[in-house]
Amino acid sequence: MFTDITSKDNPTVKQAHKLLGSSHERKSTKMYVIEGQRLCGDALISKARIITLFFTEEAQQRSADLIECLECAAEASYRVTPEVFEKVSDTKHPQGICCVCAMPEPTTDIKQEGRYIALENISDPSNLGTILRTAEAFNFDGAVISGDSCDVYNPKVLRGSMGAVFRLPIIHTDNFPAFMQECKLRGMRPIAAVPDRNAVSITSVRFFRGVLMCIGNEAQGLTEETVKSCGEKVTIPMLGRAESLNASISASILMWEMSRGK
Amino acid sequence: MFTDITSKDNPTVKQAHKLLGSSHERKSTKMYVIEGQRLCGDALISKARIITLFFTEEAQQRSADLIECLECAAEASYRVTPEVFEKVSDTKHPQGICCVCAMPEPTTDIKQEGRYIALENISDPSNLGTILRTAEAFNFDGAVISGDSCDVYNPKVLRGSMGAVFRLPIIHTDNFPAFMQECKLRGMRPIAAVPDRNAVSITSVRFFRGVLMCIGNEAQGLTEETVKSCGEKVTIPMLGRAESLNASISASILMWEMSRGK
Repeated sequence: MFTDITSKDNPTVKQAHKLLGSSHERKSTKMYVIEGQRLCGDALISKARIITLFFTEEAQQRSADLIECLECAAEASYRVTPEVFEKVSDTKHPQGICCVCAMPEPTTDIKQEGRYIALENISDPSNLGTILRTAEAFNFDGAVISGDSCDVYNPKVLRGSMGAVFRLPIIHTDNFPAFMQECKLRGMRPIAAVPDRNAVSITSVRFFRGVLMCIGNEAQGLTEETVKSCGEKVTIPMLGRAESLNASISASILMWEMSRGK
Repeated sequence: MFTDITSKDNPTVKQAHKLLGSSHERKSTKMYVIEGQRLCGDALISKARIITLFFTEEAQQRSADLIECLECAAEASYRVTPEVFEKVSDTKHPQGICCVCAMPEPTTDIKQEGRYIALENISDPSNLGTILRTAEAFNFDGAVISGDSCDVYNPKVLRGSMGAVFRLPIIHTDNFPAFMQECKLRGMRPIAAVPDRNAVSITSVRFFRGVLMCIGNEAQGLTEETVKSCGEKVTIPMLGRAESLNASISASILMWEMSRGK
């Protein structure tokens, strides 16, 4: 069952609009917006809690099955006009389906023998999305993300992650170097990825269990405190222009080296 | 020496605006637009032919040295108002410097012993830019790009490539599978990268000289003709969700494997 909404000033529409644009709003309400058939379908399969479903009549005709399933899962469903849909959409060519979801309970659980990608102050949403997508592709056990990184529930991150955000365990920490320190005390191995030709080459490192691979900000890299907390440093040896790897590419090559078997 | 332009309707401004938005215009005039201190400085160092320089008074104060050097290199220089600059800019927060450059002469030269990334119908400009950037970082000898791929001189590709477009030899071909066939006849080794678990793992391939690594479209992959032309097929063995690697990430991992030494 659904209700029709024809006004952009409807408070439910206005709240979804606010969630799209404001990380602060997402954090305080613990809700976020996903858009498009693929992501909404992914949320369903991944059993994310769907609070509100919005769809247009056109989408209802085109994706009847998906919308029916989403209606069953959603706590409330609204059919909206294309003009109203634009308010709750972040894309140029909206598909006419979006959902407001509830964030999962935050976790701090870390597997002693796991493989983690740990991100300190990653600021670009496409980089963050791509890194989470790759971590899932390589079967990582999760991601650790510093408080000053870009918001995981930013619409661009959600799209770039291809739904990895629903499935990959994500641990948030406001004190990244202290978190690494603590992991080390618990017998895990936090490793700092640095663009330093004197660091150990990633190709000669072995035993990638119980490891947290730490990647820093796109421009500044890891903080000194984090590098100190880690102790161990690795680098990607380069033949060409060393400064010239995008953060998501470096992170992916490091994750690949942790996965490829040597 | 520079001339002041205060009108958006100035024909030089209008042409630059057209070059920004139209791949057709770029192809027919063999010119393109680059923007920002970094790319313009890169063009200068890389000895790209700079036809027109545009800058604002604010940029002139902030980056006096760079603008002076660009003025010497440019065939014509114009100081423009912020409103006019917006017309020749593709970014949200323009830095007030941009140049119209001439495309280099097309090349078909290929090094028999070289390492190439070969891209068939790559459609996303950020993917294309990132792949070119990574190819340069790993000291590849060049890129082969199919005619139906995204335009290399698209502003997003130029930005994503971090100037690699100025330095990396780029070969354009309208018949991608025939080009690969020809390279094979000349003793080189075109390899098709495919998402097929039965293909040879990239980790067990050796001798990466005289190789063209072929990457296909983000959604459809390589065409059948190209896969046939190549003969050899490789894949990235995956532990997790196989479909879940972005095209620029797959390409980068393949280039890394061709570079890392085994």
